[in-house]
Order: sequence, then C-alpha cells, then structure tokens
Amino acid sequence: MNPTTVAASPAMDNLERQVRASFDRSGNDRLRMLLQSLTAHLHAFLRENNVTIEEWYAGVDFLTRTGWTCSETRQEFVLLSDVLGASMLVEVLAEARGEGEGATERTVLGPFHMTTSPERELGSSIAGAGGERLLVYGRVSDTTGAAVPSATIDVWQADGEGYYDVQLPDVAPPGSGRGLFTTNSAGWFYFETVAPAPYPIPSDGPVGELLAAASRPVYRPAHIHFQVSAAGCREVTTHIFLADSPHLDSDAVFAVRPSLIRRRQTIDGDHGDLADLVVDPGGPPVPSIAEVLRVDLVLAPDADATSWRST
Amino acid sequence: MNPTTVAASPAMDNLERQVRASFDRSGNDRLRMLLQSLTAHLHAFLRENNVTIEEWYAGVDFLTRTGWTCSETRQEFVLLSDVLGASMLVEVLAEARGEGEGATERTVLGPFHMTTSPERELGSSIAGAGGERLLVYGRVSDTTGAAVPSATIDVWQADGEGYYDVQLPDVAPPGSGRGLFTTNSAGWFYFETVAPAPYPIPSDGPVGELLAAASRPVYRPAHIHFQVSAAGCREVTTHIFLADSPHLDSDAVFAVRPSLIRRRQTIDGDHGDLADLVVDPGGPPVPSIAEVLRVDLVLAPDADATSWRST
Repeated sequence: MNPTTVAASPAMDNLERQVRASFDRSGNDRLRMLLQSLTAHLHAFLRENNVTIEEWYAGVDFLTRTGWTCSETRQEFVLLSDVLGASMLVEVLAEARGEGEGATERTVLGPFHMTTSPERELGSSIAGAGGERLLVYGRVSDTTGAAVPSATIDVWQADGEGYYDVQLPDVAPPGSGRGLFTTNSAGWFYFETVAPAPYPIPSDGPVGELLAAASRPVYRPAHIHFQVSAAGCREVTTHIFLADSPHLDSDAVFAVRPSLIRRRQTIDGDHGDLADLVVDPGGPPVPSIAEVLRVDLVLAPDADATSWRST
Repeated sequence: MNPTTVAASPAMDNLERQVRASFDRSGNDRLRMLLQSLTAHLHAFLRENNVTIEEWYAGVDFLTRTGWTCSETRQEFVLLSDVLGASMLVEVLAEARGEGEGATERTVLGPFHMTTSPERELGSSIAGAGGERLLVYGRVSDTTGAAVPSATIDVWQADGEGYYDVQLPDVAPPGSGRGLFTTNSAGWFYFETVAPAPYPIPSDGPVGELLAAASRPVYRPAHIHFQVSAAGCREVTTHIFLADSPHLDSDAVFAVRPSLIRRRQTIDGDHGDLADLVVDPGGPPVPSIAEVLRVDLVLAPDADATSWRST
C-alpha cells in the first residue's frame, strides 16, 4: 500500500523532541549522541514514509523472528547488517579514520565466524569435504615490508559446495574449513584446503524472506575469510576472493574490494610462480597440489586499540 | 568514545548507492520504497556519527539479546519501539491520515497484550490480586453519538502493585487483570477491578539496560488498556490514564494524551455522578464499590480497513 503523504505536524515534532530530551540526562555523552541521532533518523524514516501501524508491527515481527533465528551457531542479525551494507560501511569508516593505514584492506566479518577455529600446524589441511584441492600460502608483513613472525591467522571458509561446517552439523565435523595458524620465523603461513564455492546466503530465515520479497540476488562470490593479528599490530579482518568466481560484481553483502581479488595459479613443470617459495628459507615446501593461491597480508602498527572480536 | 568526524567519501556514497540499487528489482513498490529509505537513514546514521566497528557490533548484540528476550509472553521489541517513541508516532501518523476521525484518541498497544483476554459477563470482576477496588463503566457510541451495541471491549491492566499477569506466572492466574466484554443493547459496559498502580517498564532485559545506561526514567503512569471494535467501525486501541497518578508528564513510552486522562469519583450518599447510570435503562446497577471510573469510548465508521491486531 502507498499511504498518502502526510505533512509533519507539531504533534510529531513534539514527540521527537520529547524522546530526544529523554536521553539528555545520560552521563555518557557518546551514548546520548548515538541515541538522539537514532531517534531523529527513526522518526524521520517513519514520517517520511508515512508508515502504517500494520507496516511498523510487521517490522517489529521481522526483528523478533530475526532474533529468534540467532543461535550459538547462527547470527541472523549480522546477516541483516551485511545485506544492508552496514557491516561494510563501518569497516570503510574505520579506514577513513586512518585505522590500519597501509594494511591489507578489510571487509566484513560475516555471520559464520561463530565458533573457535582449531589450532593447526603449518601445512596441514583444513578441508573436511570434497572439492578441488588447493594450497593457500603467503607471508605476513608489516607496513615497512618486514616479516611478522608468530602472527595468528584465523581462517574460515565454505566447502566446495558452498557450506560452512556450522550449516552441516550432521555431516561436517566442527572445525571443518577452519584453522588457526601461526606464521613461522620468516612470516610465512601455508595450509591445504579445497577451493570454496560461491554460495547463496542462508535463505531459510527472515533475512532470506526479505531478500526474496525484494527479488534481490543472494549469492556471494567464492572467498576465504582471514582474521590476522599480531602483537603490536592492528588486527585485520578480510576475505580473499577467487578471481574466477561468478558474482564478484553482485555480492549479496557488498564486501568485494578490487584489492582483495586473487587469481589461483596452476603449478607447471618448472614451478613457475612458486620460485619465491622454494628459495625462501622459511617458505613452504614445493606442494604436491596442482592449484595454489598466494595470499600476502599486511598489518599496520597499533599502539592501543584492541578489537571487540578478540574479547 | 568520540571518534573524530569523518567526511563522506565517494566509497561511502557508492556503497549506499549500491545497496539502494540492490532493491530496484522489487516488484512490490511499497517494499522497495521502505527498504531504500531505511538504507538511506541507516547509512546516514552510521556516517554522521562515525560509528565504530565495536559500537556497531555492540548494537547488533543488543538487537540479538532483545530478540532472545522475546517469548510468547514477553515482547521486548515492542518495548524498544515504545521507549523510542516509534509506537506512538505510528499511531499519530494514522490519525494524521484521517483514520478514525472523531473517535477516542488512540495510544500505544504496549508490550503486554500478549495473551487472549478471557470472555467475561458485564459486571464481573477482572481483578486477580489485591488493590483498591474500582468500578469501571462507560458507554460506547459512534461519532454521531448513537450507542454501539455488541461492541467488543478488550481490557488489560496492571494490578495494584503494577504487575501484569504474564509477569507473575506463579502468582496471578492467566487472565488476571484482563477481560473481553460485549456492550449491551444500550452500548454500556461495566466491570469490577482494582485501581492499577504506576509501574516501571520491565528492567531486567536489554531495554531496561539501555534506559539505565542512559539514566532515563522508566515509570509509566497508572492506566488501563482498551481495545474496542465493532462491526462497521474502525478499531481503537487506547489507554485511560488515572488523573491522580504520578508520572503523567514523564511516561517512559510517551503515550499520555490529555484527552485520555480521567478522574476517579467517590460515590457519596446521593450517588452524585452516577445518576446517569441509574436512569439509563441499560446502565449498570448502582455499585457497591466506593470508587468508580467512567470511560466513554467513541468509534469512527470504517468501510474497509481491518486491523493487524485482530488477525
């Protein structure tokens, strides 16, 4: 339905003023600022769209069901934030404040970082299910180019069919597609896996219903999540996208950045692009896997900030 | 914390544009309009306040816990809508569109209309717990002043201590403080109850935490909820506030309207203001209760609309 436009009335302005004033007593200035701004935007949204009682409570019902869909292994509100571009925007805002300048560009955390990744040895496999075998390797350095040894790399990804372990509790052992690695003394990390598939975001919950109602694409291009941290460095949360994946220009969560797209390489007879690996004293051994993906990651220095994610 | 202000960047504008464009394919024009407007306000809120990643995910966590607090007998998202003035605003917007002109003014539904009220005979008592005894009576009429017989009046209220039945599952039998009455052939309704007490909105959930963090008052003035419907009329959802209650000027949910405040009367020797009752052929008998509250309710005609609440 399209309600007729309604002019702002003194009663509506007064209501907004009352709600804003109700937060005046907050001793926390930042909380007061956020709640008063939220009030202004919420009231403007309702007035500008002349929202009906039925529409508003349909929204309340949507939020309620979104909350009910959240569990220890599913985060439907993060998914909602992702599909509205909010998750990506707060990452971009952090960069615009100069946080992590010179580091690998970040992108959204996504809703699947729900469980603790198992600690694994360099070179071991995180693959649980079938798919095209892939060696992922790279070097963590700081913004001066120096190797960062003992950096922690948390990796999580969908399998060759596009599913995370938490989506297949009866099939995939917990920790499949996940690993917590530590870079060696030369800053290298490497592990075996399968190439992740592109996948539709979970569509059996309220967010899926919303996107279906709006005829919106739901696919994400193939990617691997990385969260990298090291003492004295600012943590980076990012993905690496596979260059040959479909949906790179229509990611359902707006998380693709050109700097994060990497091309897989096939190893030929003379090991071509792997030369740097072989000559580096700390690098991985020449792999027995035909496909490799190189992922170098750069961390910026960080004097004081800690991440909410590490708490 | 107060992040430094950040200027809008092309990347941020482009992100908002992408998210808005993602809804372009919606076949439902109203849904598209609402989602694109929501996107614009959400992104503007995040940009204007330079919201940090930590703050945003604290908000996501708040929404998640708000959803988890909702149950069959508790609606924490309605409470959130109430304390932000959104519930009241959508009622005011409906009135501004001319819905129910001439009818009793409406106010918020509130979070406690969770259970079906028990059908009761006129004159019976809805009181479950202790409190000051009160007779509530009144007449339902249409905007021409004609009596509306067979109107349905759904009543719910807190007890003399400020609690609803759903808040005291171990103490108050379900249906305490609730009743579904039908007006008689002369449009009258009357029932016995106890005077409701003012009460703090539930403070043991996320919304309570939010208001405490913002040092905001949490009390609601004493009131009784009415939802009145009749064939051919537009349903009215409202409260009647007790004129001698504290907090009338600081209602935590901004629901007080001057037209909804009523004064209790004490019956004296000659029955004073009850004369109209006694002479009206369909009115209630002279009560044995010393305190009475008269609540006349007016319904506007309604050709087609049905309420989401009655579905």
